[in-house]
Amino acid sequence: MIETRLTRRFGLETPIVLAPMAKVAGGRLAAAVAGAGGMGLIGGSYCDAAWIDDQFAKAGNATVGCGFITWALSDALKTAPDLLDRVLDRSPTAVFLSFGDPMPFADKIHAAGVPMIVQVQTLRDARRAAEAGAEVIVAQGAEAGGHGEKRATMTLVPEIADWLAKNAPDTLLLAAGGIADGRGLAAALMLGADGVVVGSRLWATREALVHPSMLAAAVEATGDDTIRTSVMDVARRLPWPGRYSCRVLKNPFTDRWHDDLDGLVAAADTVAPQWVAAWEAGDVSVANTFVGEATGMIGSVQPAADIVAAMTREAETLLGGGWRRD
Amino acid sequence: MIETRLTRRFGLETPIVLAPMAKVAGGRLAAAVAGAGGMGLIGGSYCDAAWIDDQFAKAGNATVGCGFITWALSDALKTAPDLLDRVLDRSPTAVFLSFGDPMPFADKIHAAGVPMIVQVQTLRDARRAAEAGAEVIVAQGAEAGGHGEKRATMTLVPEIADWLAKNAPDTLLLAAGGIADGRGLAAALMLGADGVVVGSRLWATREALVHPSMLAAAVEATGDDTIRTSVMDVARRLPWPGRYSCRVLKNPFTDRWHDDLDGLVAAADTVAPQWVAAWEAGDVSVANTFVGEATGMIGSVQPAADIVAAMTREAETLLGGGWRRD
Ligand SMILES: Cc1cc2nc3c(=O)[nH]c(=O)nc-3n(C[C@H](O)[C@H](O)[C@H](O)COP(=O)(O)O)c2cc1C
Ligand SMILES: Cc1cc2nc3c(=O)[nH]c(=O)nc-3n(C[C@H](O)[C@H](O)[C@H](O)COP(=O)(O)O)c2cc1C
Repeated sequence: MIETRLTRRFGLETPIVLAPMAKVAGGRLAAAVAGAGGMGLIGGSYCDAAWIDDQFAKAGNATVGCGFITWALSDALKTAPDLLDRVLDRSPTAVFLSFGDPMPFADKIHAAGVPMIVQVQTLRDARRAAEAGAEVIVAQGAEAGGHGEKRATMTLVPEIADWLAKNAPDTLLLAAGGIADGRGLAAALMLGADGVVVGSRLWATREALVHPSMLAAAVEATGDDTIRTSVMDVARRLPWPGRYSCRVLKNPFTDRWHDDLDGLVAAADTVAPQWVAAWEAGDVSVANTFVGEATGMIGSVQPAADIVAAMTREAETLLGGGWRRD
Repeated sequence: MIETRLTRRFGLETPIVLAPMAKVAGGRLAAAVAGAGGMGLIGGSYCDAAWIDDQFAKAGNATVGCGFITWALSDALKTAPDLLDRVLDRSPTAVFLSFGDPMPFADKIHAAGVPMIVQVQTLRDARRAAEAGAEVIVAQGAEAGGHGEKRATMTLVPEIADWLAKNAPDTLLLAAGGIADGRGLAAALMLGADGVVVGSRLWATREALVHPSMLAAAVEATGDDTIRTSVMDVARRLPWPGRYSCRVLKNPFTDRWHDDLDGLVAAADTVAPQWVAAWEAGDVSVANTFVGEATGMIGSVQPAADIVAAMTREAETLLGGGWRRD
């Protein structure tokens, strides 16, 4: 048991938060992390209302929260205006917003009495999140799996911690990006975080909704084998704002197109359906495996509760002096 | 005093190593860091023999080491074949190699009884450094100031630590990139490092050879204001291998050319001399300030010994339980 401001504020047993990974973090995974003493968040990202309902059902009695991709939520509300209300009506542990301006949603979330967690990639956006009244800010480094930007966890966390200490001392701070075991958790606490958001390491678990061949590819890979790129978003025709790119395992598809985005756009009518079909089939030579640099620390696929317990135990040992070596 | 395998092996009082920053880490800075209980390394980088001699003289009686840019050392030995021998004859604390294959130099360095420190940017190169018999490997993340690659400190350190534990357990491991205070030092120890290499934070010291207007720019900047790019190497006509880019403060020069390297090459006859003149003059609107994301944690220019002492004290406090917050 590691106690921090996060565990006290949210009644957790360990300061570990499951990243709301798009369609990967379903109700079962969120419930498993919550059951292990962490915070479980459903990856409601692109705002598929039926999927979100289904995953809340799968979480059963567990108290979990939900994440949205901020720009996708703005879009979704145009055609499904009650999407956010329906999630808020469930009294989720938290609503987690990332990749866009949280301001338009802040009042509604706060009026519902639900804590707002905002993930940011720059100091500037951390200031904006604090202005919006975020209870928790997540500093996400570029080593993270999935979408993100350029700054590293190692500097973004302490720099935001300094800013918050001066300007919004009650706002909690979590570190995200590259944290896959107790070493990363302990390091994040040293940097000034109140806890961590874990994506990649909890992606490689029994409860995650991931194709087995992608899990196998990640277990094989080293951290040298990832790339931050936009080719998948072109292939999937997703309107991601240009500042965000996505970290995945390199493969022949990224080799071919990463330096030729214009060519990919031109070839998209042929190439995009191939990528999407390969994704469904789990063909990792064409479709990309979404995982971060932490893939190099993933040795096997385990139950999520075991990962949470092992991370906690290892961090406790390190914090107690176990970092010393002869 | 923080004791690690590094401090024991090298007789240091704190596990802090000055990065051998090109022409910035002269004898005075190296001696100041050594005097404060860390390891001081002269930035012999591009192999200007007269400058190196002069800086060893300026270090006086302090025991210091010397760093070389590996590809530049290979080039330099063609015209100055005794360059490395002359440094080895001084019995330096260590020779530090970065950016290239250390193998061709390993035998000579070891025959002289001098420890070899090799800085790497990937797991693959860490394996190569271990094969070459490096006594110390430095895992350098992309958040670092100056040249580097893409991986982050947060994942590179524990991944290399795991590999070394299995394959070369006596090889020491240091973390570099984004470490600017006691939080970064404590975090690096949690990640499995035996110490840290500090560039940017020790660049902003009284003893560093840096133009005052560049120091002022770095004190002003946040970590959001840096970019990893190759435009300065084009401007300086330095033959850096394509895999390495360099982190600097953004300015109108990077805004104009970062996405138009071909244009810059075409315009180089006009533009390069302007950049170089601006560098000499300390005109930060044209020339770039070489500093890492850690610039956001640099609040003032201080004596190097004060930085080393403050980092050590802060890390001691954190390691003793000071990371807990109410
Ligand atoms: C497969 C995958 C999908 C992700 N999807 C989302 C998402 O939909 N929304 C979001 O805010 N973050 C998403 N992320 C990023 C996480 O929120 C988090 O920042 C990241 O996973 C942390 O870095 P790590 O992967 O090294 O643990 C995703 C990450 C992964 C690996
Ligand atoms: C101004 C500057 C010059 C540098 N020059 C060199 C160099 O010549 N050789 C080298 O191996 N590393 C050089 N580096 C990189 C450092 O070795 C080190 O990896 C880096 O500074 C660590 O990250 P930090 O700047 O965040 O502390 C330089 C860094 C800076 C900031």
